[in-house]
Amino acid sequence: MAGIQARIETALERMLPGPDIAPARLHAAMRYAVLGAGKRVRPLLVHAAGEVVTPEGTEEWLTRLDIPACAVECIHAYSLVHDDLPCMDDDILRRGKPTVHVEYDEAIALLVGDSLQSLAFQLLADERTTLDAKTRIAMVRILAMAAGSHGMAGGQAIDLASVGEKLSMPELEFMHIHKTGALIRACVNMGARISGGLNENEFASLDSYGRCIGLAFQVVDDVLDAESTTATLGKTVGKDADDNKPTYVNIMGLSPAKAFAGELRAQAHQNLAVFGKRARRLGELADFIVLRKF
Amino acid sequence: MAGIQARIETALERMLPGPDIAPARLHAAMRYAVLGAGKRVRPLLVHAAGEVVTPEGTEEWLTRLDIPACAVECIHAYSLVHDDLPCMDDDILRRGKPTVHVEYDEAIALLVGDSLQSLAFQLLADERTTLDAKTRIAMVRILAMAAGSHGMAGGQAIDLASVGEKLSMPELEFMHIHKTGALIRACVNMGARISGGLNENEFASLDSYGRCIGLAFQVVDDVLDAESTTATLGKTVGKDADDNKPTYVNIMGLSPAKAFAGELRAQAHQNLAVFGKRARRLGELADFIVLRKF
Repeated sequence: MAGIQARIETALERMLPGPDIAPARLHAAMRYAVLGAGKRVRPLLVHAAGEVVTPEGTEEWLTRLDIPACAVECIHAYSLVHDDLPCMDDDILRRGKPTVHVEYDEAIALLVGDSLQSLAFQLLADERTTLDAKTRIAMVRILAMAAGSHGMAGGQAIDLASVGEKLSMPELEFMHIHKTGALIRACVNMGARISGGLNENEFASLDSYGRCIGLAFQVVDDVLDAESTTATLGKTVGKDADDNKPTYVNIMGLSPAKAFAGELRAQAHQNLAVFGKRARRLGELADFIVLRKF
Repeated sequence: MAGIQARIETALERMLPGPDIAPARLHAAMRYAVLGAGKRVRPLLVHAAGEVVTPEGTEEWLTRLDIPACAVECIHAYSLVHDDLPCMDDDILRRGKPTVHVEYDEAIALLVGDSLQSLAFQLLADERTTLDAKTRIAMVRILAMAAGSHGMAGGQAIDLASVGEKLSMPELEFMHIHKTGALIRACVNMGARISGGLNENEFASLDSYGRCIGLAFQVVDDVLDAESTTATLGKTVGKDADDNKPTYVNIMGLSPAKAFAGELRAQAHQNLAVFGKRARRLGELADFIVLRKF
């Protein structure tokens, strides 16, 4: 996977406008927001789903996968930049670096997010790729649905509205399936759709896998938040229950949340069974998402 | 043109998510941002360019044109919502109504803009249309380029950087060709590309027309700003030269700016000559853009 991470970094470097091209400050800020950090989980999922279709991918095949992989990473990066703005989470640090609006300013951060979203669709539409128009427009549809008000942005709106509210488990699940899950699921679907080699049942299995790990990602995030709080801030886990933000830990408790993540991992693997060894990397990513410590 | 405006309003009504669909507050705010106001210049341009290709359009043909027309209006509306935010122009009124961040809040306004951008690409990618995949992906490419850092958002970044700076005419033109011009030009190109009926020379003429009216739009905006200031605020036009923002009026003076708008109008008409009567509506739109009083 380190090899894929490295090629994604190189591809993003190449696909982002150079820092010397006008408007230079905006382009430098876009690169600051995207490059040199991040686990690249979403691009890895695109590539791993592509491996299900074509296990021994040629360089040309990998280059085709780089396009949706970079597009989805642009959407993810834009969402982080906008999330960090003062009117949203008001975060000043992201992965140990000042956030974009701190390093540059709020107006540039807004435009960085807006431009990265446009760039994502521009990458998918680039006619210089070997992808045919039908595949490219199918990926535009998947990504636009996953990013917009029926997906990620919609999940954030529900998140905003939920502060101070008591959510039921189904409501919490609805929120996270949109906020985090939609884009993760889109990665799997784009990687799979890039080739006509799968039947509808196989697509449905991969989609279910994507749904499981998208939700698991958020459950584990909540668990890690609770545990790192306990360990590093000396705040007891129980105190999170008093917090204003509904999380899986707050609603289920820490142990049941961990057990739920384990269940989702098992379900994810079940959905991969039909693909045998071709889904090895997707299986490893499900494990990584649930077992990670950061 | 009133007929086209009315059908665009209906199409936007239908294409925007209903105000009762979750997340309801976000969807209501998206509708607030888009519906019931605006001159719809961009959708009119899409339709008028489509008329060049097919002068006697059937209902099916008009419905096809509605898709890029609504997509570009979503991009335009998103840019207004984000422009009005406190970290940008900090405007509280837009077309006589409170701006989205005033009527709702800043976080929702941010998500409204983000979601409208996604929706624009989702509309172009919708497979239920009669547009073939090649046409749709070509329009995604045109719109993504026009909206992103090489187009509208890039122009706004240059605009931000230019406050307090003395710009040369070429620099001012570069800024406005990006900020306002790119999206207007994209309208003409999308309307034209929706059919394969034009040759490359004809496409180039329409593109030049789009470039002229895109720039004229901004020159006239600057003239109207200066004149309404004089008339309504009792501020002399000469005082604008002391303002921090470079405009055509500040750099050229009021009369030369008016003359320049007239020249651009004449150039726009020259580019239409080859099409004869089929370009009647595009000609009228050039006249409207230059001669409008609001």
